[in-house]
Amino acid sequence: MNNFTFHNPTRIYFGKGQIQQLGEAVPQTGSTLILYGGGSIKRNGVYDQVKRALGDRTVLEFGGIEPNPTYETLMQAVTLARSRGVTFLLAVGGGSVLDGTKFVAAAIPFAGDPWDLLSKKVKPEQALPLAAVLTLPATGSEMNPVAVISRTSTREKLPLSSPLLYPRFSILDPETTFSLPPRQVANGIVDAFTHVVEQYLTYPAEAPLQDRMAESILQTLIEIGPQTLADPTDYDARATLVWCSTMALNGIIGCGVPHDWATHRIGHELTALYGIDHARTLAVILPSLWHIQRDGKHAKLLQYAGRVWGLSDGDEDTRIDAAIAKTAAFFEQLGIPSRLAAYGDVAPDTPATVAERLEDRDFIPLGERLDITAERVQAILSLSLTPA
Amino acid sequence: MNNFTFHNPTRIYFGKGQIQQLGEAVPQTGSTLILYGGGSIKRNGVYDQVKRALGDRTVLEFGGIEPNPTYETLMQAVTLARSRGVTFLLAVGGGSVLDGTKFVAAAIPFAGDPWDLLSKKVKPEQALPLAAVLTLPATGSEMNPVAVISRTSTREKLPLSSPLLYPRFSILDPETTFSLPPRQVANGIVDAFTHVVEQYLTYPAEAPLQDRMAESILQTLIEIGPQTLADPTDYDARATLVWCSTMALNGIIGCGVPHDWATHRIGHELTALYGIDHARTLAVILPSLWHIQRDGKHAKLLQYAGRVWGLSDGDEDTRIDAAIAKTAAFFEQLGIPSRLAAYGDVAPDTPATVAERLEDRDFIPLGERLDITAERVQAILSLSLTPA
Repeated sequence: MNNFTFHNPTRIYFGKGQIQQLGEAVPQTGSTLILYGGGSIKRNGVYDQVKRALGDRTVLEFGGIEPNPTYETLMQAVTLARSRGVTFLLAVGGGSVLDGTKFVAAAIPFAGDPWDLLSKKVKPEQALPLAAVLTLPATGSEMNPVAVISRTSTREKLPLSSPLLYPRFSILDPETTFSLPPRQVANGIVDAFTHVVEQYLTYPAEAPLQDRMAESILQTLIEIGPQTLADPTDYDARATLVWCSTMALNGIIGCGVPHDWATHRIGHELTALYGIDHARTLAVILPSLWHIQRDGKHAKLLQYAGRVWGLSDGDEDTRIDAAIAKTAAFFEQLGIPSRLAAYGDVAPDTPATVAERLEDRDFIPLGERLDITAERVQAILSLSLTPA
Repeated sequence: MNNFTFHNPTRIYFGKGQIQQLGEAVPQTGSTLILYGGGSIKRNGVYDQVKRALGDRTVLEFGGIEPNPTYETLMQAVTLARSRGVTFLLAVGGGSVLDGTKFVAAAIPFAGDPWDLLSKKVKPEQALPLAAVLTLPATGSEMNPVAVISRTSTREKLPLSSPLLYPRFSILDPETTFSLPPRQVANGIVDAFTHVVEQYLTYPAEAPLQDRMAESILQTLIEIGPQTLADPTDYDARATLVWCSTMALNGIIGCGVPHDWATHRIGHELTALYGIDHARTLAVILPSLWHIQRDGKHAKLLQYAGRVWGLSDGDEDTRIDAAIAKTAAFFEQLGIPSRLAAYGDVAPDTPATVAERLEDRDFIPLGERLDITAERVQAILSLSLTPA
């Protein structure tokens, strides 16, 4: 097991009716800015619950944070917050709203050009306190210090991380997710699933508890994913999906083990280039990446085949092939194509373009062994562009 | 799944050489009191590492905290800390030293009689900041806000819990545990195992992720328990035991599910009466409690039999009997008798005495269904007193 530091100070309020906790948990004094997305929270009643819980506090609002939140939009929130002396940020929405709010929290007190927080990885020295009401289980942003922000003008999508950006608290009421479109729920399942494998499907690191906990989340997602899509108001299934997504990326399963994150890195480029949903980029890259990286991941792919999918027949290569096929079939079962070929508008030179962009950003080599070269990135994407 | 709040602000520094983190993590100003036990830290080099890491800080010491730390001893530390204006407490040792330090942290600023914190469950309004260097994996005290304190004069053993008592940080270096006597390591394995089942082996609560994570810890303890006893310097096995013990009682697996804790409540009385090691009291009560409570725990005992022990043959009662027998055999394999009858000095009227003491403290009824009456406590202990 590798050495590690673990610290996650976010307080979670989980369950039915928990939005009322805002009445106690948001500071009484100062000025709170509520940030949200396209307005679904006004249609599904969450906005009203939030406003009611906040009572007569001074509250400002900033709506319109888009999926893959952009620097351009978020800087408008920064300007508003600075001009009005905002002291607390409350994100109400899914991972994009939360990520966007984290950037705003870091950008408000930042003296230089806030884009440097992303492009130059300048570490923020202070940030506004923030909290969240989560309405979409997927990214884990509700209990981690990471944000991923896009810039329209340069078609970039870059991560930001700082211990200052843990939400002070996050409210997770599964009932607020009942009205989500199936596509977003399916995306969330794939996102959480991929977060787990990025921290699990690497090479053995003598960390059997972390392995089993990762497998626990994968098995549970496989079990309740189709169930919660089929019956969105089944509270327990949806609550389990919400908690799986949070546990997938709150640091616990990643303690003391190697991390990969190549699927995310490559996927971010596809989203930046084509606007393909984040989770869908993961679904198309992951199976291809496992095929190309199967030697380095051999032992863990076998363990995954046996423990997560119960595969025991055939030789090792057969079991690995079957496990990769089952993973892709799981994504497809959720309604998410697992081949880039299925997304019609992708240019044939995409593999070369993505590899070049990753090289330009010094992200190459990728993977837990740092053995994913530009050539392998191209091989992964080429495989994914081949029709199944 | 039940509603829950989760918040665990303790920072964990895990791995080889992490004691040096004290140099950064302990406040530079003020006065730090190091609390420890019987002096093993002076023999195994941990004390020297701690002193070196603390450099030229103002440091006081208080040694001699016993297993099942007593109010009488701890009040001497309170007096010392008050008279010398101590501002930070550093526990160096196992669960008893940590628990004792938590009591001292709450008692120092407490205006009334500190025993009221335990006997009258008075909630502390403030506490000194505390941190820990853990040298014995077992209780989980390094990442939770709970302490259990004994009082010699009244033969009582009572819990104290407050969010103020989370360690600010805990250092877990598995190498510091290599020199532990096998008996203490075995006790730690049983303690961690029982912590998990107190939060798992209750009744189904539609919380499949929490179930699987609990099963992950149990399976891992069964796997590495005998291994780390056989080879104490196998770093990865010991590191896994340390992390299992912490994860067993840091709140994660207990989120949104029913809790039992009857085995602990009954066990505390046996320790208070006879001084039997805490873990050994758990090992003798758990199998008997499962037999007596098998109807209420039927579904989870079956799940446990199948998933943790791989039992699939025979009818349901046969599988449950086998799972209980395998649990007892696991404890015995670690060198810990699983029948109270094996502890020779136990009076035959112990079942009645324990039931009476629990009734006097208003702890009855016990269990996740509050159906463990005084009669059932007696039945559990009587069964355990019967030779196997």
